[in-house]
Parts: sequence; C-alpha cells; structure tokens
Amino acid sequence: MSLKTRADYLASLKKLRPNIFKFGERIEDVTSHPATRRVVESHARAYDAAHDPVLSSLFTTTSSLTGEKIHRHNSLMRSLEEVICNSKFKREMYRVTGTCTGALCAGWNGLNTMWAITHEIDGALGTDYHPRLKKWALMAEKEGWTVAGALTDAKGNRNLKASQQPDPDSNLRIAEIKEEGIVLRGAKLMICGVAASNEIFLLPGTAYGEAEKDFAVACAIPRDAEGLTIVETRRPSDTREQEEGFDIPTETGITQAYLIFEDVFVPQERVFLCKEFAYTGKIIQYFTAIYRACIGACVAGQGDVMIGAGILMARANGLSARTFSPKFVEMAVNNETTFTMGVGSIALGSRHPSGIWVPDFLTAHANKIHVATLPYETKRICQEIGGGIVETGCFPSYRDFTDPKYGKLVQKYIKAGSCSPEARARAARLTEWLTLGAGVPGCMHGGGSPDGARLVVRSLTPMEKYAEMARKLAGIVEEIPEPGK
Amino acid sequence: MSLKTRADYLASLKKLRPNIFKFGERIEDVTSHPATRRVVESHARAYDAAHDPVLSSLFTTTSSLTGEKIHRHNSLMRSLEEVICNSKFKREMYRVTGTCTGALCAGWNGLNTMWAITHEIDGALGTDYHPRLKKWALMAEKEGWTVAGALTDAKGNRNLKASQQPDPDSNLRIAEIKEEGIVLRGAKLMICGVAASNEIFLLPGTAYGEAEKDFAVACAIPRDAEGLTIVETRRPSDTREQEEGFDIPTETGITQAYLIFEDVFVPQERVFLCKEFAYTGKIIQYFTAIYRACIGACVAGQGDVMIGAGILMARANGLSARTFSPKFVEMAVNNETTFTMGVGSIALGSRHPSGIWVPDFLTAHANKIHVATLPYETKRICQEIGGGIVETGCFPSYRDFTDPKYGKLVQKYIKAGSCSPEARARAARLTEWLTLGAGVPGCMHGGGSPDGARLVVRSLTPMEKYAEMARKLAGIVEEIPEPGK
Amino acid sequence: MSLKTRADYLASLKKLRPNIFKFGERIEDVTSHPATRRVVESHARAYDAAHDPVLSSLFTTTSSLTGEKIHRHNSLMRSLEEVICNSKFKREMYRVTGTCTGALCAGWNGLNTMWAITHEIDGALGTDYHPRLKKWALMAEKEGWTVAGALTDAKGNRNLKASQQPDPDSNLRIAEIKEEGIVLRGAKLMICGVAASNEIFLLPGTAYGEAEKDFAVACAIPRDAEGLTIVETRRPSDTREQEEGFDIPTETGITQAYLIFEDVFVPQERVFLCKEFAYTGKIIQYFTAIYRACIGACVAGQGDVMIGAGILMARANGLSARTFSPKFVEMAVNNETTFTMGVGSIALGSRHPSGIWVPDFLTAHANKIHVATLPYETKRICQEIGGGIVETGCFPSYRDFTDPKYGKLVQKYIKAGSCSPEARARAARLTEWLTLGAGVPGCMHGGGSPDGARLVVRSLTPMEKYAEMARKLAGIVEEIPEPGK
Amino acid sequence: MSLKTRADYLASLKKLRPNIFKFGERIEDVTSHPATRRVVESHARAYDAAHDPVLSSLFTTTSSLTGEKIHRHNSLMRSLEEVICNSKFKREMYRVTGTCTGALCAGWNGLNTMWAITHEIDGALGTDYHPRLKKWALMAEKEGWTVAGALTDAKGNRNLKASQQPDPDSNLRIAEIKEEGIVLRGAKLMICGVAASNEIFLLPGTAYGEAEKDFAVACAIPRDAEGLTIVETRRPSDTREQEEGFDIPTETGITQAYLIFEDVFVPQERVFLCKEFAYTGKIIQYFTAIYRACIGACVAGQGDVMIGAGILMARANGLSARTFSPKFVEMAVNNETTFTMGVGSIALGSRHPSGIWVPDFLTAHANKIHVATLPYETKRICQEIGGGIVETGCFPSYRDFTDPKYGKLVQKYIKAGSCSPEARARAARLTEWLTLGAGVPGCMHGGGSPDGARLVVRSLTPMEKYAEMARKLAGIVEEIPEPGK
Repeated sequence: MSLKTRADYLASLKKLRPNIFKFGERIEDVTSHPATRRVVESHARAYDAAHDPVLSSLFTTTSSLTGEKIHRHNSLMRSLEEVICNSKFKREMYRVTGTCTGALCAGWNGLNTMWAITHEIDGALGTDYHPRLKKWALMAEKEGWTVAGALTDAKGNRNLKASQQPDPDSNLRIAEIKEEGIVLRGAKLMICGVAASNEIFLLPGTAYGEAEKDFAVACAIPRDAEGLTIVETRRPSDTREQEEGFDIPTETGITQAYLIFEDVFVPQERVFLCKEFAYTGKIIQYFTAIYRACIGACVAGQGDVMIGAGILMARANGLSARTFSPKFVEMAVNNETTFTMGVGSIALGSRHPSGIWVPDFLTAHANKIHVATLPYETKRICQEIGGGIVETGCFPSYRDFTDPKYGKLVQKYIKAGSCSPEARARAARLTEWLTLGAGVPGCMHGGGSPDGARLVVRSLTPMEKYAEMARKLAGIVEEIPEPGK
Repeated sequence: MSLKTRADYLASLKKLRPNIFKFGERIEDVTSHPATRRVVESHARAYDAAHDPVLSSLFTTTSSLTGEKIHRHNSLMRSLEEVICNSKFKREMYRVTGTCTGALCAGWNGLNTMWAITHEIDGALGTDYHPRLKKWALMAEKEGWTVAGALTDAKGNRNLKASQQPDPDSNLRIAEIKEEGIVLRGAKLMICGVAASNEIFLLPGTAYGEAEKDFAVACAIPRDAEGLTIVETRRPSDTREQEEGFDIPTETGITQAYLIFEDVFVPQERVFLCKEFAYTGKIIQYFTAIYRACIGACVAGQGDVMIGAGILMARANGLSARTFSPKFVEMAVNNETTFTMGVGSIALGSRHPSGIWVPDFLTAHANKIHVATLPYETKRICQEIGGGIVETGCFPSYRDFTDPKYGKLVQKYIKAGSCSPEARARAARLTEWLTLGAGVPGCMHGGGSPDGARLVVRSLTPMEKYAEMARKLAGIVEEIPEPGK
Repeated sequence: MSLKTRADYLASLKKLRPNIFKFGERIEDVTSHPATRRVVESHARAYDAAHDPVLSSLFTTTSSLTGEKIHRHNSLMRSLEEVICNSKFKREMYRVTGTCTGALCAGWNGLNTMWAITHEIDGALGTDYHPRLKKWALMAEKEGWTVAGALTDAKGNRNLKASQQPDPDSNLRIAEIKEEGIVLRGAKLMICGVAASNEIFLLPGTAYGEAEKDFAVACAIPRDAEGLTIVETRRPSDTREQEEGFDIPTETGITQAYLIFEDVFVPQERVFLCKEFAYTGKIIQYFTAIYRACIGACVAGQGDVMIGAGILMARANGLSARTFSPKFVEMAVNNETTFTMGVGSIALGSRHPSGIWVPDFLTAHANKIHVATLPYETKRICQEIGGGIVETGCFPSYRDFTDPKYGKLVQKYIKAGSCSPEARARAARLTEWLTLGAGVPGCMHGGGSPDGARLVVRSLTPMEKYAEMARKLAGIVEEIPEPGK
Repeated sequence: MSLKTRADYLASLKKLRPNIFKFGERIEDVTSHPATRRVVESHARAYDAAHDPVLSSLFTTTSSLTGEKIHRHNSLMRSLEEVICNSKFKREMYRVTGTCTGALCAGWNGLNTMWAITHEIDGALGTDYHPRLKKWALMAEKEGWTVAGALTDAKGNRNLKASQQPDPDSNLRIAEIKEEGIVLRGAKLMICGVAASNEIFLLPGTAYGEAEKDFAVACAIPRDAEGLTIVETRRPSDTREQEEGFDIPTETGITQAYLIFEDVFVPQERVFLCKEFAYTGKIIQYFTAIYRACIGACVAGQGDVMIGAGILMARANGLSARTFSPKFVEMAVNNETTFTMGVGSIALGSRHPSGIWVPDFLTAHANKIHVATLPYETKRICQEIGGGIVETGCFPSYRDFTDPKYGKLVQKYIKAGSCSPEARARAARLTEWLTLGAGVPGCMHGGGSPDGARLVVRSLTPMEKYAEMARKLAGIVEEIPEPGK
C-alpha cells in the first residue's frame, strides 16, 4: 500500500463507530465535529508532512521490518539517530500545530517499549508476545495508523496500591481471561489525541507487584472497540472551539479523554502482556525513558511558536521585535535546553537486545523537571512581551469585534501598529491560546509527574560514590558513616 | 447615612442605565446577568465584610473629612498604617473572592492621587480642583460608592506619542471645553470591575508633554454616563460563567471592559485636571507608587487561596498535605514577599503636604517586578501539587459528570480520596480557575508593565553614587569615567 | 560624656588585655595587627559617621533612658521607625566598609531582645534582671561601647540536644553559681567582630527545655574577661591581609572568632538570664525577628557596592556601564528586595510591653530565605559584568605587578580602558574580595540557617485557614480531612 | 613508544627551562614547587587513569593516524561518540581532581579545531598547514604531551578592535615573518594549566578582519620557548598552597597564567595559520562549539564532588544525608543539565570534511549560559548543607588547630558527629576550596563570556521563521513587518 495521505487518514476515522462524547453529546463524525475536528486537523498535518518534499525525510522512514517507506510514527527506533528523529518530529509537529499531537507519540513509544519487553518475556518465559506484536506492528505500518497510547489509570486513592483500592476498577484490569482473549474493565484517563486515533495502545500505568497481577496488561485495541466509551475532557476556553470567528485563531487543537472500559474484549493476538507483573517496572522505565527524553522537544516546539507569537505581538503593537531581544534569547535558551538535554539523554542511551534504542534513564528524568518548569517561564515571558491584551486575552470577543453597532469602534481601538485590527487580535488570541487557552499541553504531569522524576534522579544518582570521591579528595582517611549506622 | 450594605449596593447598581455589552448583547441587570453577576458578587463581599464583626475594622475606617464611619475603600489614606490597611484589605478581598475586585482599588487610588495633585495644582495655579474633588469625595463616602479607576488608553501605535497617532482618539481626549464642563472622546481599555462600579475615576494613562495637553484629563463620571458604551472583554473559559454546574466552582469573578467614549459630557465640578499636562507625570508617579506597593497584597491573597487549593487537592487525591510541605513553604514565601516588600515600600514613603501618604517609588516599582513573576511560580507549584487533573482542568464537564448514561461512571473514576467525586471535581476546577481560568487576574500588566517598572528602578537607583562608594573602598584615587566622556 | 570618637574608640580597644590569637600568635594590639586592624577600621567608621554632618542623624539618636545624644548602636529601639533606622544603619555601614560590622549588630539586638525578655521574667518571677540590664545599658550608652553578640554554640552533634552531648561543653553552660556571679564553660563559635568590640553580649544559641537549663544563660562580659581565649578563624584569602600592596584593596574587613570559655566568671549585675530555660525560646524568637528583618539591609548594602564595582569594572574594561543596564537593574531589584521586605516585616511588627518594637516573625524569617539566595545571584552578576579578570581574581599578585623584571609588562597587559593599570587592578580585586574573598559576609547561616527560617515559615503560615478559604470559595460543603484522620 | 606514565610525565616537565614566576620568584621545578605542584598532580592523574584497568578505556583510545593506543587527550575526535568521550573524560577528571585540568582541554580542542581549519585553508589556498599539523599531532601522540591552549589576549580596550588599540601588543601578533618561521609579540592571559604542560597551542582570541591580519596566527610552541615569560596569577586563598597542613585539603589544584611573548620565534613547521584572517571566525566557531559542548561536563564533575562534600558535611555534623535529599536532587539536576545538554549539542553536530566531529553551534552556546549560572546555585546549596563552618571557611587555621596551647580546645569544639575533628575540618575545607577557594574554576568566562554566548543564540535562532510559523498558525493573512520597514 502506498503511504497514507490526509484523505486516507480522514476516511479511516470516519469509518469508526461513534463512541466519543462531550457535553452529553455523541460525536458522530470526529473529522467535522467542533470538539474534535481540530485535533484531527493537527494529526492530519503529519500526513501532509509525510508527502511534503522538505519534511518527508523527517516524517517518513524505512521500515526495519519490511524495507518499505513508512510513516515515521509507526517505526521501530533502532538507533540514537532514530530516537533523535522522534524528538525532531515532535518539535516540528508542535511548530505546525502549536500544540500536542498525542496520538503520534504515546502509542509509538508503547510499540517500541513493548518491542523490548516482549523480547525479554518471550526469552524468559517462552511466550509468543513478540511475534504477536510484530504482526500488529506490520499492520500499523501498512495502514499508517495513528495510535494513541494509554497508561494513566483512574488510580483512586493515591495512598493505596491498586489491589487495595475500595473500587477494584480504579486501575484498568483483566476482568476475565477467555480462550481467545481477555476482558478489560476500568478506565484510562486523560488520554491524548484519542479522537484522532485509529488505535489505542494500552500499557500498565505503574509498576505492579504480585498482588496486582490482574492490572498487568498491555495490548492494542481499535479506538471503537465494543464496550469502550470515550468522554472528552474540558480544556481552558474549550467552548470557543464551537464558536464562530477567531477567538481560537488556529485550525488545530488537542483533546484528552476518559476511556471507560465496560468489559472490553481484546483478542489474544493483540495482547502483549497478561499478568506478567514482574515486567511492569521495566515497561514504565523504558516508556518514560523514551517519553521524557523526547517531551523536551514538544515544549521546545511550542516555545518556538511562542517566540514567533511574541515577535508578531511586538510588531502589532508598533514596536520593533529587537526591543525584546534579551527576552527572546531567554525563551530560546529554554527551548533549546529541554530539546537538547533530551537529545543528550538519547545519545547517552544504549541499544536493547531486541534492537530498539533506549535513552539514558537518569538524564531523561532530570529533563522532565525542566519540562515542568521552563515552559512556564517561556509563557510568562511571551505574555510579558505581548502586553495586557494577551495576558488574559483581555479584549472583546469576535462577536463583539463584528457587532453591527459597536464592532467598528472595538476595531478602531484594537488597532495599534500598521497591521489590521484583525491581525493584531489574531496574534493576541494566539498567545492567549498558547499560554492560557486550549493550546496549553499538559506537559507537567503528562507522562508522569516531576516529583516522580525527582525520585528517579535521587535513586539513580550515585550519592555514596560521590561521597567517597569527596572523602578521597579531602584526604580523609577514616569513614564518615550515616548516623545510626 | 448609615454604612452601605450589600442590599443597598445591589440596589444602587440596578438603578444604572444599561450601557454594558458582551457577546453582542446588552446586559440589562448586572447583578443577575451571567457575565457580570460574579464580579458584582465579588464586590458585594466587601459590603458584607464592612458589617462583619471580625472584618469591619479592616473594611471600615473613620473619615478624615467628617469623622463618620465609612467604607475604607472610600477613604483618604493619611498615614503609613492606612496605606498598609489598603494592602491588607486587598489581600483579604482576594482571600474571600479568589480574584481581583478592581472597583475597590484603582478608583480609590485615583482619589488619593488626585487629592495630592489637585492640592499642588491649586497651590501653583490658583485653580479650584481640590475643593471640587473634596466635594466628590464626600459624596463617595456618603454613598459608599464602588469606584472603578481607568487609566489605560487604547494607545494605538506604541512607538508614537499620543499627539502623533494617526487616530487622535487613540488616547482619551478633551474634545471640547464647554462652559459647564468638558466633552470626552476616545477609549479606556481593559478596565477592571466596571460592571460592579457606581462610578469611574478617569486619569491620564501616561505622562504627557505640551503637545499632548488635550489628553491631560482627570475626572469622575457615573458608570452609566451618556455617550459611554462599555464592552466587556473575554477571559479564559469565560463562557463557563453562563453554564450550569460547577465548572466554575466559585460564585465570584472579575471583569475587564472597553470603555468607549462618544462625546461624553463631564460637568465642571467633576473635573479635576483639564490640560495641566505638567502634572501628568506626577499623577502616574503617585498612582503607581500606591498601586504597586499594594498590588503585591493582591497576588499574595490569591496565593493564599492557592495554598489552600493545593491542600484540598492533595487530600482529595488521598495524600497528606504534609507530603508537599516544601512546596507550600515556597508558595508562602512568594506570597509574603510581594506582600511584605509592598508594605516595606509603604513604610519607606512619606506624607504629602496635602495629607496623604505616598509610598516609596523605587521599591514600589521593584516590587512590581516580583508581582510579574512570583505568582507564576506559585501557580505552577499549585498545579504541580494538584496533579494532572488540575493542570489543564483535564476531566469531563459538569454536563458529562451528570450525564444520565455515563455520568455515574465519570464520577466513579473521578473519586480518589475519601471525599466525594464532586468535592474533588470542585477542588480541581478551583485550581484550574485560579491558574488558567477566569480567576486569573491581569497582575503582570495591570497598573503598568514590568519593563516600565524596570525603567523606574534603573532611573531611581543612584548608580553613580554606588560607583563612587566602590571607588573609595577600593582605594582608587583617579576617576574612572564612562568611555567617550 | 561627649559622643565617643574614633580616637576614643581606638584608645578603648588598646586598653584591653590581649586575649586574641590567630595563626598561633597572640595579637598584642588589635588596632594595628594585620589580622584585626581592618575589622577595627570598619567599626571605627561608625564613630566617624556619628560625627559626620550628613550621617550623624542616622548614626546617633536620643537615649530613651537619659535624653542624651548617643550612638544609635547603643539605643533601645522603641518604634518601627527606630528599627527601620537599624536597617538603614546596616545598609550604610556596608556601603562604607563593603562588609559586615558585626559588633554593631548582634550585641545591639541582644540588648533589645533582653530588654523585652527581662521585663517579662521580672514580671513573672519577681527577679531583678531588668534593672541590671538597664544599668548595663546606661554604661554602654555612656561609653559608646561596641558590643559583639554571641549566640552560636559549638553544638556538637546536630542530632542530639545539649543535654545529650557526649561533651557537656558543646554548648556554653553555667558550670557553677557563686554568690557574686556565675562561672561559664564552653565556647561560642563564629562570632563576628569580636576583635573590634569592647564587650560581648552572650545569649543562648537555641530554645532549651528543662533538661538543658544549665545552658540557659544571658549576660554581658568585657572582651578581655579572664578565662576567655579568642581564636580568630580563617577567611578566604585572609593571608592577603598580611601582605603589602592592594591584593586586598580595601582598608576594611571583618573577623569571626572562636570564643573559648575556661571558667569565666561573670558578676551578678551582668547576668540577665540564669537557668530560666522557659524564656530561651522567646529569646530566639525576638532576636531572630529583629536580626532577620534587618539583615536584608546588610546584603543590600553590599549589593550596592557590587553595583558600583560592576560599573567601575565595565569602564576599566573600556565599556560603557550602560551596556550592562539590565544586569544592574537585576542587582538593584535583589538589593531592594531584601532591604524592603525587611522593612515590611518591621512595619508589620508590634510594640512589646517593655517598650521595644518587635518585627513580624513570619515575614522576617521569609526574608532570611532571600538573604540566603539573592546575594549569590548578585555576586554572580557582578562577576559576569567584570569579566575573567574578576571571576577568580585571575591576574598576577601585587608582588608581580611591581616586580622589577617583569612588573612593567604585567601592567602593560592589565591596562584596558583609559584608567591606569593600578585602578583596573584595584577594581578587579575589589570584586574578587566582595564575591570570593575576605569581604564575603557569612549571611547565609549568620543568625541562623535558611532551613531554620523555612521551618518558621511553615509553622506560622495558617495552612488550615487557607484550606478552609479555598473550600468555601469552591463551594465544597463537605470536609476534606487529612488522610488517616 | 609505550603509553606515557606519571613518571614519564613528571620527568618531561622537569626537563623544561624554568620560565615560570609567581610572587616575584622563578619556579625551578614545577613538580615540587608549592605554587605549581598541585596543578601538576592534577594532570598526572590523567596518566594514572590511562593505566588504570577501569578508566583506561576512557583515558586512552586508538590513534586514527597510526592505529596505536594513545592518550585520549592527544586524539582527533572523529565521531559523536568520541566527542562525548571528551565530555566524559572532563567530568571524570573533575571528579578525581576536584578542579580544572586545563592542559588536557584547550590544547586538545585547538588541535581538533585546526585539523578542520587547515584542511579548509589548504584546500582553498594550496598551503601546507594540514600536513604540518599532522606532523605535530603525531609527535603529540607519540610523546603523550600535555598541551595547554591559549586564546585569550590581553585585549586592551574592549571597545576597540585589535588594530585600533593604542598598544599594538594588546593582542598577540606576528611581529615579523622570517624565512624559517615567525616572531610573536604580545601576551595571552589567564591561560589554564600552563605549568603542567609540555606544549602550548596558540590560537587567535577572536575573529579578525583584514586590518587585523597580523593577529591571525595559530601555532604550537614548547612551554619553555625562548622569549616566553610566564607569570602565574593569584587565586582565592592561594597562599594556603604554601602552608603546612590541610587548609587546602586536596593534593590537586589549577593554575592560570599570563604568557608574555617578547619576540618568541616559532619555526615554520609549527605554524598552522599565518595572517589568513578570513579563517579566524571559523576557528572561534569550531573551537567554542567543542569547548562549550564539553565544558558542561567540567562543572558537572565538580558538582558531583560537591554532592559528595555535602554528604560528608551532613554526616560530620551528626545528621543523616537523607535530610537533605531534595537539595542533593537539585544539585544532581544542575549537574546532569550542563553535562547532558552538552552531550545533546554534540549529538546534534556533524562531521567536518576533514574527519573531525563538530558539535552544534546554537545549542553548545546555549549550554554555556547554564554553565555560567547553574554551578553557582550548586555551590550555594553545597554551602547551605554544610552550615556556617563551610560558608566562609569559618574556623581556625591548621596552625591554630594544632597549636600547643589551645589547639586541643579548638579541636574539642570542632568535633560534631562521630568522626574526628580533623575529618570534619577537612570536609569543611573541601567545601570552602570548591565554592570559595582555589578550587573554583573560572568556568563563567573561561572559553568566552555568557553574553557572548547569548549573542550567538540570538543570531542562530531563526526568529523570522518562528514569526512566520506563528502567523500561519494564527491564520493571519497579511504581513506584520518590523516598524520602519
């Protein structure tokens, strides 16, 4: 099959059963419904890019399974260069959409993670997960699927383990094992880009012990699987997506959804982990290593757009962008930091025996801490450059902008520099959307919280080795032990 | 007259001519219309507080003009203690509303500023502005008015002076001087709390030279003045204000408006500056000194609420708030910094010959820089504590929460700690509202930009004196001049 | 007696018994010995200032005990204005010395603290500490004493209480109570400015319980008390103080000492607390409130000098200081923050029944956290402006600068702007001294550690009240308790 | 020849002509003189490491020229992995020495930079620089030379170009071209590790235009070249290097020197650039790309030691290091940031046609900004953990620690946890040395200033492209040009 196009992609979404809801309404066609058409548009741009002469080398690659040209987001990443391409892909997607395209991210990572894990399990236990996954991977490549990835469970009480929760469904679980497959119950929450996806890759949300083996499940399901109800969550200013005009000035957007599993059947050939709890820790480890190494690229890409938005606003206000050079440099340093540190953690990684490349854990997690802080500074600076009009989107609505009675007056007073009132308004709304609106990605907790990352940094930093080095350097001959030891 | 009550206040607003618009619609009753009732509720709480046994000492004071008990927000601030009370008042108002009550702030500052300025002008030029203002002040006290303050002009091209703008209306201007008063044309933009105000105090938006004397105007007008059209601006997630349910969980809110002046007549006795351009610099100086000394209290008060929201979320997630102690300490230090540094700049101020107390300029402006940065950190920390559910408000809408088909399932998965799903949802929406939603005050540019504050810090820091001190300390006997001098 | 002069001061120091040591050597005359003459010079400048027409209003005041004109550093601070003057005094002293003048600080605070505490104890227990202290205070005023203050004990193992230490002398203790006085054993460490002091005011280093009552002691002793051995500590680059030339370019400096008490007898009339352990907590509270409110002024004053040093270096390098305006603004904001926030905590304080003014605890401690961080940023910026020559003092010594063979060449290559090589060298050494050298004050831990301050912020922030406010705002009707409660 | 050993290395240094001076004294033997033996010891540890079974794979490599095993610091870096090894080498050297080993850094970079540049020049101009350099490189490999690198000129007035300086020697220049070589006059300042080097690699200090072609010179000279006088600069607390005892507790150290060229002759075969000014810009570009990509590893390595020092101090104070976990995590994140971002910029680089790998410019420079800030935070945290004793090294000297009269008392009071007083003292002095003492590397300005890096970030960030992206996203159809264009 030839490389999937935007048209193919849209057609493939239209075929799916309508199981997505928002504001109490079933969404019949995700490609046109106001609540989902933007996220679909975002993802469609990856298909455009795959056919774009400049971008195709980044958005496509050669399948290591078939030698065919495939969408990069369906590939196995087998070298540091290929994982760096994941980062560059993400940065570019943010640049062309202004926001997250989650169904080109977590599912891809899930495939790569499970490629390694199934290789390990099969080697240790003689299972056949790896060939099952290979079969699915070949389909994904062939169909050019967009694949959401779902890890985060409802969790329930954060102080209790999955097996201790009053409600056993608080974490997605294997409710029953049948001959031809398994039955899932529970929920996955805050899942990005589901409305734009063909498939959903399910992974455990945390590392489980034996008591939690029913929660140890990995598999892939079609987005419209029977028994799966998808409820889209709110976002800041999300109702503007349903309004006429430019109060959201972009055509793009992102969604996050609650996936509710009411006895969803998954056939065996799509199951890649079934109760082998001992591997869940490694799943989290590999997944977060790739995810956190690359997520710095996402916020960098959005930061690039924020530099652009700042330049537009400065000029729309009648000022030279050069006035704000030190601020733009600060923004650029933030962007390059999360991007480049991620690239560094990729380069410090190593190849897994299964063939995929796994970034360095310690530094990937350390980068997550920057991802949870630096973009907030970048947003603040972007608001500072733009002025009061962007800080809280403080100007009349499109409806008022075009009001027959006073719209002309509103426009008269929005005009500032040499550009039109509409251009200034659009630039201001863009900054609002990026910094306070529906374009804000959930990068702080997405893929795990910064405090989780801090714990990893703490456990992987060889503190005692450093103490020993310091002791040697200082010429201290005695031991200086922990008190009480 | 006895001290105005909430009921008196609401009645006073209902009497005003309906000249406020949003989304193309005229708002007939600001006290009940979804777009304005929250801002009215916010301000009404100050009237409740004035009658509250615990809070009344802060919310009322004794008039220095009549000796009567009055609302503090109508008072002249004649000592450092009274300006500190302004700060404490602001912090408390944020605590009880979660957001800005702009019509209890800028108008009050405007009165105090013009008290000093009219004293100076009358002394120098023999005008009678001061007695006019006194008369208005007596009315304000007597009526217990809520007074919005309006400085920010449309401005037009930021690179041009008011007199150079292609559109002369870019800054509010005296279009005509009549025998009994003046006629105003132009606009004041992004004006806080107008919908909750009885009166609007107008001040020049910047320091003007002789060429701009037509823009040098200060006066007070009723909110429903003839010729004045008020268009409310958007805010993040503002349409939720019109929705049923708790997606905005508070009863309170803030508004910011475009005030469009189409030949608004202001009678002489309400005019306090008319073309005396030479005093506009001082107006800005005094106004910003008070404003920036006190605005640190606003963000501190909202920060206090964010600490509270963080504690609620931790517990709603099943965790002890103590887990996050270092984060709460960091938030508290941010809050106390902007508040206390403001108090310090008040204490370093001095009494103006007219009787009012003026905070120290340098340090008030330095504090503005913190106001433009520290609350952003506090918000980030608050989001970090709350988790993914609060970061972008990432859970289904109230409509979906109560959906007859799947609402129960949504609730089942929102439940985390021992509290009800609704309590957790409300706590999460509170954080969203405070950090990304309609509760975000425009504190960065409100009252002037941080870059403006930096310019003041630069000009008021005695750089050469410091260089001289350093030279002396270092035992350098020769001069070290600027190159090229 | 007339107001003490520099000459009187120096004479008073020369009279003291030589009980100070450094590098194994007894210092016979502190006013001329290289290790101590700089700290004496620093303190002497306060006596100059008291006689300076411009500065005398800050450096002197009227005794509330006698109505006489006295040195401010001997006064009781009875109003917020007087405590603010303490702050201004400190900032000015840093400006004229570049460093700490500890014997004009901690002893003064000790007097004021014990003024309140003795008032409380006498009221509760019928003791006569307050009149004893008053008698000492009158002498201090009359003699214009410089008074070091000593709180920090050796402490021993930080994990054990004073009563649990293997060595009972780890905290200064009352070894014996005699009829006419008490006998002290133990040590006070890292005590500032002792070599420049006439007297030392001793206070407990922490809050003690009943088991530690032997450590609950406050008193004043002459610097040369029998049984007291003073060993001066090292400082960065301290041997330069003994070198010829300008590698320390200032005439000023600071010292910190180990005070070793080998059965030091203190007569009764100089004892102000003797085993009343229950008051030690309050001593720490009052002392740190004053100390931490004012210490922000110290680092501000040194920061002022660093701005000056930065300007000198820019020009000595041939550049306009204006090039670095944003950096100078950043430094100025840091300076004004610690100073003004301290002033704010003073203004938020209250008058103690004994008559002295006590700053607000919470905000004074919050300011300490800035004192432990912002000056580090200021130093970094100062080094950044100055360039490589200042960063680590990276140029040849004075000895090499004047070497007969190659000194001329060294000078030739040190020359940069229009000033002489010596001027550039002195300016560079000034920055080194301020940021990495003997001029660095120990402001991070001096007067207690920032982690101690964080604990105070944590305990004084009304967290539960804030949670309650948030709950009310969010319309949550149920309680959300701590888990496990 | 077999791989050079420590003994070989020391012997090679002893053979050199004594042309190094400090404090007016000629240093006869750098390996034993107090001012230089520590820097020699630092570098000697690289030779130990090359023979260490664990470290040899990092400290040696295979020559791409001969296939022989060589010291890594003499190698051509031909792949991203090899440049990453440069970073890892630097981090490890900091760990084993606590400080900079400059003669294993800048000279190595100089060789690699000129490998590319001479390849370009020869290709363009038909010169034979590349073969000359290859010959020198083969010698360097064979001899296992330690090679200092010297770029920084005296510069003179920073506001004037080299050709405009009043003193033409302000930048090192070709004073004469002879048949067999060139004659150099001028100076290179603040050059690291010269006393430990066999050779010095000279490079231009900035990009030159045609008027400055006499300053366009690159060559390698023996450290003891005729006409070269080396004056060592001061460092904080440098005289402690001459003292007995442990006030500098390490055996290691670093030096920085003034190199004064009084007609130094360099034979033709050692000259690699001679007036080809057009290539000087590229020299700076390539050199700083490698240097700034890797320097993050240096400060990371020192940061590792600071974590260790913090752990030692906590324990020496009687506390568990776990108490300070969040602080250690913060330090670790700082360390990993500068290291990993550098690795990222290496991975984003590309191979030069000459065969060497050149890191990415933009991100290498962006990392320099972190190198100029994050280590300052790490130092502050390290001081905070250690307490007052480390903050300014505030305890008596070794001389007083061992004083026959009171030394025992000093020790009694220095004792805190279970370790000996000497161990606590050494740990405290280590922190002092690392944060305020002679161990502080000049990483802020070394290899160029952060403001220089900011200029590069500004020029390499595609601002207009970002503006265009933003414009497209916002649906703005018109151009928004810079004002005045």
